[in-house]
Amino acid sequence: MTPPSRPAPPAEALEVIERYREAVLAQLRAALAPHKGPPFDQMRYHLGWQDRAGRPLEARAGKLLRPALCLLACEAAGGEAAPALPAAAALELLHNFTLIHDDVEDASTERHGRPTVWRVWGQAQAINAGDGMLALAHATLLALEGHPADRVLCAARMLDEATLRLCAGQHRDLAAAEHPHVSRDAYLAMIEGKTASLLAACCGIGALLGGADGATIAGLEEFGRQLGLAFQVRDDLLGVWGNTAETGKPARDDLRAGKRSYPVVAALESASEDDRRILLALLDRAAHDEEAIAAASALLERLGAHEESERAAREHAEAAVGSLAGLALQADRRQELEQLARFAAERNA
Amino acid sequence: MTPPSRPAPPAEALEVIERYREAVLAQLRAALAPHKGPPFDQMRYHLGWQDRAGRPLEARAGKLLRPALCLLACEAAGGEAAPALPAAAALELLHNFTLIHDDVEDASTERHGRPTVWRVWGQAQAINAGDGMLALAHATLLALEGHPADRVLCAARMLDEATLRLCAGQHRDLAAAEHPHVSRDAYLAMIEGKTASLLAACCGIGALLGGADGATIAGLEEFGRQLGLAFQVRDDLLGVWGNTAETGKPARDDLRAGKRSYPVVAALESASEDDRRILLALLDRAAHDEEAIAAASALLERLGAHEESERAAREHAEAAVGSLAGLALQADRRQELEQLARFAAERNA
Repeated sequence: MTPPSRPAPPAEALEVIERYREAVLAQLRAALAPHKGPPFDQMRYHLGWQDRAGRPLEARAGKLLRPALCLLACEAAGGEAAPALPAAAALELLHNFTLIHDDVEDASTERHGRPTVWRVWGQAQAINAGDGMLALAHATLLALEGHPADRVLCAARMLDEATLRLCAGQHRDLAAAEHPHVSRDAYLAMIEGKTASLLAACCGIGALLGGADGATIAGLEEFGRQLGLAFQVRDDLLGVWGNTAETGKPARDDLRAGKRSYPVVAALESASEDDRRILLALLDRAAHDEEAIAAASALLERLGAHEESERAAREHAEAAVGSLAGLALQADRRQELEQLARFAAERNA
Repeated sequence: MTPPSRPAPPAEALEVIERYREAVLAQLRAALAPHKGPPFDQMRYHLGWQDRAGRPLEARAGKLLRPALCLLACEAAGGEAAPALPAAAALELLHNFTLIHDDVEDASTERHGRPTVWRVWGQAQAINAGDGMLALAHATLLALEGHPADRVLCAARMLDEATLRLCAGQHRDLAAAEHPHVSRDAYLAMIEGKTASLLAACCGIGALLGGADGATIAGLEEFGRQLGLAFQVRDDLLGVWGNTAETGKPARDDLRAGKRSYPVVAALESASEDDRRILLALLDRAAHDEEAIAAASALLERLGAHEESERAAREHAEAAVGSLAGLALQADRRQELEQLARFAAERNA
């Protein structure tokens, strides 16, 4: 067995995403352009394009990872990125619909250093703006041109299937907040739905639109799924140990919200009975007790949950890379996909 | 000018809807069948198929007006109903997604005499169940078979456009609750988005799948739009003067919620300054004062708002009938469409 190649630094992966940024942003703006007023103003606010009064902003919200994955997968399969742009934009809109609703469901007050949509316009309008964004995501994908109608239908079905898995995963996530004990398997099933299914769809739809055969579509879907698992485990790690200035989220927010995120689940599974009892007691008090949050974070560190989270994220990133083996892909794009998978497991923001 | 034919009694219109009921229900059940557990259990609960513990129910929730309109329009255009059933089911699912979210947004505790989804599972899970139902609506439409792929894509686009208009209308509705003065024009723009756009899509998609030409699709869409306006004005009337046993909603619920529904909007526009002041004061107190609600209802009656609402609903129903003139439609189905339009304006449930 050859040793895995040295992981590329995150900076290179960000350059890959950067390459598509302008085209994706232009497509996103085109998708929203025909729609004046609310609830589309709320969507533009959420995307960081304008402030609450509708004045333009220069803020750069979002990494645009999902569109980049879609376009990379498309090119890796031998296709052209440009005709796949509406799908890439649709996937970003779909992702942002989930963020608007997640913020309501989790009562999160801030995202990217700005008040969340529901904080500005209230819960009811935020639910409605998210609904509109889901519909806009669909409409944007259906605006694909230059592809056979059958293929567009197939892409639309993949988008819906991912959304259904996403909602099933979100249900598990919300339900887990009410149960102190979540097994690692239950946790993985949850993030597979909530995060990995959409990243799998990004890659699968990209490959489909790039003209890939069934095996290549399936391989790239699996790549996206594993990358998604790596991404979410890393996200959970950042939710405990991330730096607010980099993540744009309040520090240790996941502990405050009582989330059973990967570090917590891993620690609860491997800790002694005493440590487990202490950790659960600290988490119980976390909602209103900053000292309990700090103590929980320190205990998780001592129990090895930080290292274990890093290990698990890396393992899924390598599984992602492995799932590309044997696929006939354009060589440069394959390398960039590999960079992205490792970026997902190592990023700080 | 010939006088309009005598309006058919609601009973006949209900028979038309009844004709499609079993086939639509079977299609709805087939759409949900592959999806076990939550959030799909929440959808089945909402649809009246099972109780909160997952035990089967015999309850008949919903009129299934939207699927019936879709299938009638399809047959009126010369098509077969059976191959359009997935679209009909999709439109009913889309409608029910809006109900689940409306109940959260309006904090409504009961629907069809049962606790609303958010009352049973909480707001966050209800938002998520509604999201899933919107995705399921799309997926169900995309499962259409036996139609050219281009036509299915066109139907999917019509569904998305209706959803976007619906969200714009819902925004206006939510915003109106915070403003005491809503003009009749603003009210009509709101219900055009919130209700009429979906009924227009039902008829337009049905006509499209029935093989209609562009003019016939447009005519049937306009029919659905006018029927939708009639339906909503009647709904507003029932929201003040409806009978709980028939509507399944608490009596005068719209007054309690401070809604600027048609009777209120019409009364505020035509009342004297004194009456307007009294009405607004009563509505201000309505949220927690049953006597104020009763007094507001009586004042609306005295100001002629009941009659005016009946008149407006009838007017839109006749406009719906008029929009079918000149279209080449199957004669029996045209008559049934006319019955449905009049039913929308005269129903008590």
